[in-house]
Amino acid sequence: MIRFECDYNQGCHPLILEKMQKTNFEQTVGYGEDEYCENARALIKAACGMNDIDVHFLVGGTQANVTIISSVLKGYQGVISPDTGHINVHETGAVEATGHKVLALPNIDGKITAMQVQEYITAHYEDENACHTVQPAMVYISFPTESGTLYSKAELEALYEVCRANDVCLFIDGARLGYGLAAFNNDLSLRDICKNSDIFYIGGTKVGALFGEAVVITNDLYKKDFRYNIKRHGGMLAKGRLLGIQFETLFTDDLYFRISKNAIDKAMKLKDAFEQLGYELLNDSYTNQQFVFLSDEQCAKLKEKYVFSYWGEFNGKKAYRFCTSWATTDEQLDALIFDLKNYQ
Amino acid sequence: MIRFECDYNQGCHPLILEKMQKTNFEQTVGYGEDEYCENARALIKAACGMNDIDVHFLVGGTQANVTIISSVLKGYQGVISPDTGHINVHETGAVEATGHKVLALPNIDGKITAMQVQEYITAHYEDENACHTVQPAMVYISFPTESGTLYSKAELEALYEVCRANDVCLFIDGARLGYGLAAFNNDLSLRDICKNSDIFYIGGTKVGALFGEAVVITNDLYKKDFRYNIKRHGGMLAKGRLLGIQFETLFTDDLYFRISKNAIDKAMKLKDAFEQLGYELLNDSYTNQQFVFLSDEQCAKLKEKYVFSYWGEFNGKKAYRFCTSWATTDEQLDALIFDLKNYQ
Amino acid sequence: MIRFECDYNQGCHPLILEKMQKTNFEQTVGYGEDEYCENARALIKAACGMNDIDVHFLVGGTQANVTIISSVLKGYQGVISPDTGHINVHETGAVEATGHKVLALPNIDGKITAMQVQEYITAHYEDENACHTVQPAMVYISFPTESGTLYSKAELEALYEVCRANDVCLFIDGARLGYGLAAFNNDLSLRDICKNSDIFYIGGTKVGALFGEAVVITNDLYKKDFRYNIKRHGGMLAKGRLLGIQFETLFTDDLYFRISKNAIDKAMKLKDAFEQLGYELLNDSYTNQQFVFLSDEQCAKLKEKYVFSYWGEFNGKKAYRFCTSWATTDEQLDALIFDLKNYQ
Amino acid sequence: MIRFECDYNQGCHPLILEKMQKTNFEQTVGYGEDEYCENARALIKAACGMNDIDVHFLVGGTQANVTIISSVLKGYQGVISPDTGHINVHETGAVEATGHKVLALPNIDGKITAMQVQEYITAHYEDENACHTVQPAMVYISFPTESGTLYSKAELEALYEVCRANDVCLFIDGARLGYGLAAFNNDLSLRDICKNSDIFYIGGTKVGALFGEAVVITNDLYKKDFRYNIKRHGGMLAKGRLLGIQFETLFTDDLYFRISKNAIDKAMKLKDAFEQLGYELLNDSYTNQQFVFLSDEQCAKLKEKYVFSYWGEFNGKKAYRFCTSWATTDEQLDALIFDLKNYQ
Repeated sequence: MIRFECDYNQGCHPLILEKMQKTNFEQTVGYGEDEYCENARALIKAACGMNDIDVHFLVGGTQANVTIISSVLKGYQGVISPDTGHINVHETGAVEATGHKVLALPNIDGKITAMQVQEYITAHYEDENACHTVQPAMVYISFPTESGTLYSKAELEALYEVCRANDVCLFIDGARLGYGLAAFNNDLSLRDICKNSDIFYIGGTKVGALFGEAVVITNDLYKKDFRYNIKRHGGMLAKGRLLGIQFETLFTDDLYFRISKNAIDKAMKLKDAFEQLGYELLNDSYTNQQFVFLSDEQCAKLKEKYVFSYWGEFNGKKAYRFCTSWATTDEQLDALIFDLKNYQ
Repeated sequence: MIRFECDYNQGCHPLILEKMQKTNFEQTVGYGEDEYCENARALIKAACGMNDIDVHFLVGGTQANVTIISSVLKGYQGVISPDTGHINVHETGAVEATGHKVLALPNIDGKITAMQVQEYITAHYEDENACHTVQPAMVYISFPTESGTLYSKAELEALYEVCRANDVCLFIDGARLGYGLAAFNNDLSLRDICKNSDIFYIGGTKVGALFGEAVVITNDLYKKDFRYNIKRHGGMLAKGRLLGIQFETLFTDDLYFRISKNAIDKAMKLKDAFEQLGYELLNDSYTNQQFVFLSDEQCAKLKEKYVFSYWGEFNGKKAYRFCTSWATTDEQLDALIFDLKNYQ
Repeated sequence: MIRFECDYNQGCHPLILEKMQKTNFEQTVGYGEDEYCENARALIKAACGMNDIDVHFLVGGTQANVTIISSVLKGYQGVISPDTGHINVHETGAVEATGHKVLALPNIDGKITAMQVQEYITAHYEDENACHTVQPAMVYISFPTESGTLYSKAELEALYEVCRANDVCLFIDGARLGYGLAAFNNDLSLRDICKNSDIFYIGGTKVGALFGEAVVITNDLYKKDFRYNIKRHGGMLAKGRLLGIQFETLFTDDLYFRISKNAIDKAMKLKDAFEQLGYELLNDSYTNQQFVFLSDEQCAKLKEKYVFSYWGEFNGKKAYRFCTSWATTDEQLDALIFDLKNYQ
Repeated sequence: MIRFECDYNQGCHPLILEKMQKTNFEQTVGYGEDEYCENARALIKAACGMNDIDVHFLVGGTQANVTIISSVLKGYQGVISPDTGHINVHETGAVEATGHKVLALPNIDGKITAMQVQEYITAHYEDENACHTVQPAMVYISFPTESGTLYSKAELEALYEVCRANDVCLFIDGARLGYGLAAFNNDLSLRDICKNSDIFYIGGTKVGALFGEAVVITNDLYKKDFRYNIKRHGGMLAKGRLLGIQFETLFTDDLYFRISKNAIDKAMKLKDAFEQLGYELLNDSYTNQQFVFLSDEQCAKLKEKYVFSYWGEFNGKKAYRFCTSWATTDEQLDALIFDLKNYQ
């Protein structure tokens, strides 16, 4: 079976394992205060072009989301999210487990707009019984989104302007950040992300690491005591250097960006194939997730050799997700395209 | 500097990294449902001599404690723990973060007794306003304890009997389980642990793994829907096979037990040295943590070459902790003993 | 100013204050274990026609909702609610504060159907990664709804059947229960409510009491240790007899039902007036809440003498809520109708 | 039976019920924004001699404690309390239910000292792994304490100085505040309480009201959005005026202070009786709670006519609590003293 069901079905970039092996018997201090973490932080600061940011390493995405959100919000505050946001659907209520409501706004292609956010906030404060409702104090978006789409620079700047104008924290889930930055139609750089958010993270799990997300806090307001929050949510890795080693490797010689590009190249090749072979796409994604409608027969035949995910029913037709990744090979992709031709 | 401050300052057993490398480009399903995890589960069941147990893999100890405790307790229930228990002091209130009070009983050498537990429970239910206090519904102990001590088979059996008699769940934190089982004065086997608890975990982080704890649920009552709890607490590792690969390696050819023994051999050699050189020990530990009183002068001199932890002041004297591990070498230990002689 | 903005802007039925005065210097045990509470429980059991139910008295609605929901659900479970449900919008995230997600389904006139619930539950369990989402384990509905509408007996029976078939708890928020039971088009009795739910409460705050909600637990599964939950959520009234006295009074000689009828009579008179005078109603409510569209001019004029609530904009028109209650007088209503004529 | 088991076994001061009756059919806005609440706030500000304080009314003590503590603390922070503090023992973990650990320090006669607090905070920040432990950010004390004792002005000032020096919030639980202020050996005024704390509350439930606690926030830091917290914790009384009416009455013509004095007069008379009749007191209380050792025989005989509470065993002897209140009469007390003579 060849797997396209997600972007975390293989190990990590070989350079990471190599470095783990080389350093295996070194003795270091624990909990992310070792020199590998320090160096990784320096490399990330350089890549961000900002020095006064805090960088923390966490193991996974749900953990990162929960630690960040519960760190920013007061008890009675909630986080605005597209209804398709990962925190709203696929984390078993991990945000609610910390006492906070996710305030879901209807998504447009996986995204929400500055105007939607402003209207929601305005409506909240215009209500004379505002204190009977959850106070919106944070906005959560994903880049790229769960639908594979991207915020343009103009969209992100508008969102951040609304957030700042309302004293609301903007947090970007970058679980697939590399794939967003590498997309052909993307006009945002890592520095732009930095300048247009209060907190975000650079996903490692889905982009070449064994595991790990690098949380970047750009707004001083949210920096204090963050390590207490990490520990409180069970996210303080004892052998923290494992995270340092991975991000040090990924941010040396632009490895993170180079391997991200492979996923995009493969995804665009797949997208072309879908289109040329007459398969209908669910949406216009330029990142590593491609969503396509399949007939039951096509699906059944493809399932004999490939693993991919059911995404949902839209207007009576069934859509499926195919993911490429940093590790997708030409062989894997060519096989799939060959069969797509047969079953078109 | 040579480090004795903890048992997680190095990487992992080389066989683990070797297997990670070998399998790196295999494609597997995520979230712990791959064949490596399945095989690791089978090996652990065999080691436990029980087949009807559930085995789950988590990344770290605090995460394991919180996931397990919040999975067992109802809102108004609390967990009894020695006041020195890890959950009571060193997890930044992670248990309270899930809404539960830790009901701390005074420890005796890091342990609590069956009688203490019975008396606490009896007192709770005898109170006519019992519902104004937290209901004790779980007992948390560590094996070995945070003080390096061990429950004897008789002590554990008595505790478990009290727990069963009161419908209270007994949970054993086995972050250092290997080191407890390998201790010379230990009379408990892994099977005994299994038979005398409702849930426990086999610590990997401190015993040869890069990270990972294998949670074993023996009581059917607590098995249902455990994976929801893992996800809700941010503990569902995307590339779950990394945990499977590690525990598969550790439970092949008794590796877990063999490397645990190294830590004990080294610790006993260190203990002997302390005693023969006239250093006063804080307690009588037979596991990989040794606690010793040092004068300020001795401490200062040793700090030039060694890292170790301040443990606290007892009757005006300062105690320090020295840990050995699966990776401690003769060279490291001999250097320390040599200097202990010089500063005695 | 004459107030129609809600149904809790006056004190209580005079018989309640009279009894409070008569018993004021009696000494009783606290926390709801006094004879007034016992008697009130007996009267409620008689009114329900069931003896094996548990009755608890709480001070307010949000407190009741939170205590009940967090008592029933396990951590990873959530409660299905119409998106217009009080718990979903007007409780400042009180349910989320206990760690649980409100799973909002689109309302139809304030209600949800058995089919919607079944489809949601089916979809949850069909998802192969179900454990990555919140498990639906409870259904919350209001009778009457926040929109003034009612579930018919057939609708409620269908909902309860789906709940039982799926091992899901059905909870009915009866903050305005009296007004629902007294409605002309209602075909549900208190006994029907009892037989077709697992937990519900009989609202006192809005129906003649100073404060207080009588929680009725019909399903044995949810009875155990409920008082711990009350105390844990700060809902254990020290002078619990105040609740007993109120519900004893309300359930003596059918007072609760008789005063409920006054609200309905007044509301129907108001509804007739709206219709005959050409005001457009938002929906077809037969309970004590009437929703009507007003022009800005009409609104401004009415605001000179009356207090009522803005309800929202629908298709470009602004709707307002007028509430009657057990205490609404003919004078109050006639004045309003007189002015409605003037501004029609 | 004559009840001395607590100070909330009767109704309220008759003037309160009188005013409730007089105002019963007035229509007012809900949720504590009515004129009665406004006036009560003004009267309390006058009594406190401070104008820039916020006053909120809550129904009960546990609710007040939880709302205040969770409003002040960030997730990873905890509240220092004497181990005998109400929040630590008698609230079914209500504070933990909001995610916060109660950091219990050993009490001395129900109190903790400035030095204990400073040492605890110092030790926290000296720990190089401070972030692995709960950060102390608040101090909770009761005035009078649960043991009936009082902080002197010097003790309170010292505590508050330590709190301010460490940026820690000082919160005083004044459930029995009136009885503390009225004690003969008390040297603190309401104004002193105001000046030497960040938040406190004036207990009504135990001092003449049917229910109700008036929360006073003196520190601007903790004022913002407090009403959201009230609602979120289910403490927003719909007919909020009931609280306003009660505190307006209690703070008119010094009623609160005058009725408090009755409890103290009666308690001192009882204390004298105990001492003169040779009963041994558990401690030296000058407030309305008196703790006395009784033999099993004495206890049994007294239980025939009186209700009082078992307090605990101290050095093999059993102590019992007798409470007086604003409502205790000479007849009640004389009867008890008469029988104490018989059973001495």
